[in-house]
Amino acid sequence: MKRHAFDTAIALTAQPDGAYLGQTSPAYANMVGPFGGVTAAQALNAALQHPDRRGEPVAFTVNYAAALADGPFALHARPARTNRSTQHWVIEMLQAGQTVLTATAVTALRRETWGAGEHSMPNVPRPDAVPPPQGPRPVEWIKRYELRFLEGGLPAAWDDRDHGVSRTQLWVRDDPPRPLDFAALTALSDVFFPRIWRRRARLVPVGTVSMTVYFHADAAQLAATGTGYLLGQAQAQAFRHGYFDQTAQLWNEAGALLVTTHQVVYYKH
Amino acid sequence: MKRHAFDTAIALTAQPDGAYLGQTSPAYANMVGPFGGVTAAQALNAALQHPDRRGEPVAFTVNYAAALADGPFALHARPARTNRSTQHWVIEMLQAGQTVLTATAVTALRRETWGAGEHSMPNVPRPDAVPPPQGPRPVEWIKRYELRFLEGGLPAAWDDRDHGVSRTQLWVRDDPPRPLDFAALTALSDVFFPRIWRRRARLVPVGTVSMTVYFHADAAQLAATGTGYLLGQAQAQAFRHGYFDQTAQLWNEAGALLVTTHQVVYYKH
Repeated sequence: MKRHAFDTAIALTAQPDGAYLGQTSPAYANMVGPFGGVTAAQALNAALQHPDRRGEPVAFTVNYAAALADGPFALHARPARTNRSTQHWVIEMLQAGQTVLTATAVTALRRETWGAGEHSMPNVPRPDAVPPPQGPRPVEWIKRYELRFLEGGLPAAWDDRDHGVSRTQLWVRDDPPRPLDFAALTALSDVFFPRIWRRRARLVPVGTVSMTVYFHADAAQLAATGTGYLLGQAQAQAFRHGYFDQTAQLWNEAGALLVTTHQVVYYKH
Repeated sequence: MKRHAFDTAIALTAQPDGAYLGQTSPAYANMVGPFGGVTAAQALNAALQHPDRRGEPVAFTVNYAAALADGPFALHARPARTNRSTQHWVIEMLQAGQTVLTATAVTALRRETWGAGEHSMPNVPRPDAVPPPQGPRPVEWIKRYELRFLEGGLPAAWDDRDHGVSRTQLWVRDDPPRPLDFAALTALSDVFFPRIWRRRARLVPVGTVSMTVYFHADAAQLAATGTGYLLGQAQAQAFRHGYFDQTAQLWNEAGALLVTTHQVVYYKH
């Protein structure tokens, strides 16, 4: 069986000093440098692959400190604190000796408790009732995802007026399909195009500065989700002085909220 | 003029090796250890006070790695990357040589751009039309804030049933009033009592694991807000396997969204 492009992209090689080596993936190239979702997945993977890791990710924050150059990088993942059921990771990615990314992760042994959802999946048509996008796919990474927009796709016309709302809803999965895991879920958390493009219908320069992912699913729930579609919803709350936020959710087809995720994005003009 | 308890609480002393010394504040004591909001403010303050710091905070993530003991702590704040208009910080707090907190911050020089709000302030009565809380204030830090609940205050009866919703709305400010700054805004981001207490009306053990704060306000907007009230709103999206999330907003009285903030919280049972 051919190895999935995502597995190739997030593969890391352990070094004798405990660091990991990886490299940016041409299959997930963005306009400049790589797709940030895959960069985040690579960073999380350094903790996931670490021999001292305990438990599954609960919270992950990644800060994009500099544009990545295409090519190799080093990842340092340090368990700063290990408790009975939680572990705290500090992660840093370097290229040519310079920090290009900082991150923290919390992993935990999860247990059965009372549980409840509070943000229910919107009532939308099933994935097979939504056409795949027809338009051009100008960057490589977009081709690695099957995106079926329900609401708020890329503007049909870049008419440069305030559309008043930035919400997007879509069905999404890896293309070709790949069984869901924490690394894939991390990348999918960044699958939404910039909210300011949606709101203003104007292609201003943008770049995610920081993203946080909260994992509500454990490995068993990811296994149950398998290669199914995820419903993604994203919306901004404020655009001001060069930065806007995005708050987003990913549900599986059965309606379970797998991830809530947030980011803050730089924009120009 | 008497120094405000918050200023005493977040005061740090620079050490010759570049670290900072601080200590937990009895004025902000929680049931066990200190109020996490003040701990977060102390950690951010290490970057804010750092002589190399450039710009104002845009994003801040704090991970609570262990319960703090009452007493002194050391803070290490390192500018991992300094760009033309952004700077990336890695922060760590230690007690007795053990990591008790990890954090990252992004500071930036902000500039005038197009801007818009998208999450409008709810239409609620003004602060002076809302009574201050009458009930007992069992922990010390609660007395440092003036909390006027509009919706979803502490349950009147701990009746241990699922109330189906976790939303809280309140007017809040420091008590006594103190001009708003980034450190105070960080502490206020954690002012909401645990969502699971609201939803289940049951006092299960809880602890915030990770909190992220996005600052939409710059220093000028904080100065304009002054000692006015903030409208806070908080709600969970999912409770599962020992962890729930909280997503929250803080607006000033003029209706400007100053902060959007998120956290993930451990709970038992």
